[in-house]
Amino acid sequence: MSDNPEVTIRVIAILGGTGKEGKGLAFAWAKAGYKILIGSRQVEKAQAAADDVLQMTGGKADIQGVTNTEAAEQADIVVMTVPFAAHRTMLESVKPNLAGKILVDVTVPLVPPKVTKVQMPPAGSAAQEAKEIVGEATEVVAAFQNISYENLLSGEDVECDVLVTGSSKAARETVIKLVEDAGLIGWDAGPIENSVVVEGLTSILIGLNKKYGVESSGIRITGIPRRV
Amino acid sequence: MSDNPEVTIRVIAILGGTGKEGKGLAFAWAKAGYKILIGSRQVEKAQAAADDVLQMTGGKADIQGVTNTEAAEQADIVVMTVPFAAHRTMLESVKPNLAGKILVDVTVPLVPPKVTKVQMPPAGSAAQEAKEIVGEATEVVAAFQNISYENLLSGEDVECDVLVTGSSKAARETVIKLVEDAGLIGWDAGPIENSVVVEGLTSILIGLNKKYGVESSGIRITGIPRRV
Repeated sequence: MSDNPEVTIRVIAILGGTGKEGKGLAFAWAKAGYKILIGSRQVEKAQAAADDVLQMTGGKADIQGVTNTEAAEQADIVVMTVPFAAHRTMLESVKPNLAGKILVDVTVPLVPPKVTKVQMPPAGSAAQEAKEIVGEATEVVAAFQNISYENLLSGEDVECDVLVTGSSKAARETVIKLVEDAGLIGWDAGPIENSVVVEGLTSILIGLNKKYGVESSGIRITGIPRRV
Repeated sequence: MSDNPEVTIRVIAILGGTGKEGKGLAFAWAKAGYKILIGSRQVEKAQAAADDVLQMTGGKADIQGVTNTEAAEQADIVVMTVPFAAHRTMLESVKPNLAGKILVDVTVPLVPPKVTKVQMPPAGSAAQEAKEIVGEATEVVAAFQNISYENLLSGEDVECDVLVTGSSKAARETVIKLVEDAGLIGWDAGPIENSVVVEGLTSILIGLNKKYGVESSGIRITGIPRRV
């Protein structure tokens, strides 16, 4: 469980959590002992995803499927894994439920068909757009944009570090703890303006996946002793 | 020596090459057998840097110090290592000498005092600004923004990959060959729009250097078999 002077995290909401990103994170955090609320517009879909994850943990998880709004309302921290096309709409609909909480934005602003080319929204990045929408009441942290969810779901080694950017240092530190609880290595990558780098890196990794015929290229920070 | 259907590289100019970045690259490429022209506004400074590098190679290098304009004029490929404050002026002054050549831009648009925060110029990145200035006649490739020049100069292992972005695939491939000849691993990181990621990553690495008290954090691509 995360525990810092500012916030104690027990319940994690994963909005738009029915895809592999949401289920992968839910699986990792459920194993670490967090209560997970998977959110979707349709409760049935959310519940089906929650059941999948429950089964993956051998029935040993505290996980439930609810609407996105309920998930955001009931959680201590809110993670969002949606396609960029749904980013703004989702944020506007849950904004009232985010006040005083940290929003963890996993969104990468890919613009099909050129997903290997970095194309940021006018705000500078998806995370900066999120911050503009949610305003002062909610800290926004961007993370988990580069990892392979196939590996996270299958329990294989995720050979990719997590660069954590965000609108306050305390919020980044809270999320780095969650990264570690998910079995990954997290690094403080600085202010939210730096999220363009991490979001954009996904396009570069997709290009490398295509070029080399692999599924999960990633990055590692070198030159600093690794924590286990 | 680099050799692809489009261009054979024998002579490398390093503009603004009297700092550690320029000397580090000059040292690596001189050892690989390239003829190096170190450029500076003052020939004396360029010659002193060339002498330093010559000495580091035990006198076994073909290296010379000349003006920036002469270096650009006489080289097959032109590498630029200048502080961002000198970026535009330098490009405007050597533009006539770059036609038909590849420009390798090593510039990171750091804006003191907040060098750990990504702050890109209106063009999107230093490399995109360079492309706007030099125009259609010159391909621009961005590379080498993240590596530790201390390690390159001392001959220690540079534990950092080189992400190569640029305005044409052929130009990126030419530069990846030069990366390998310098003893590093290079990756095709896609179109020049992606240079924002690699330039911005430098700010993140500077932040990590400060936080962890190290001098040369870097990145490695994972999940793809490494070439030696």
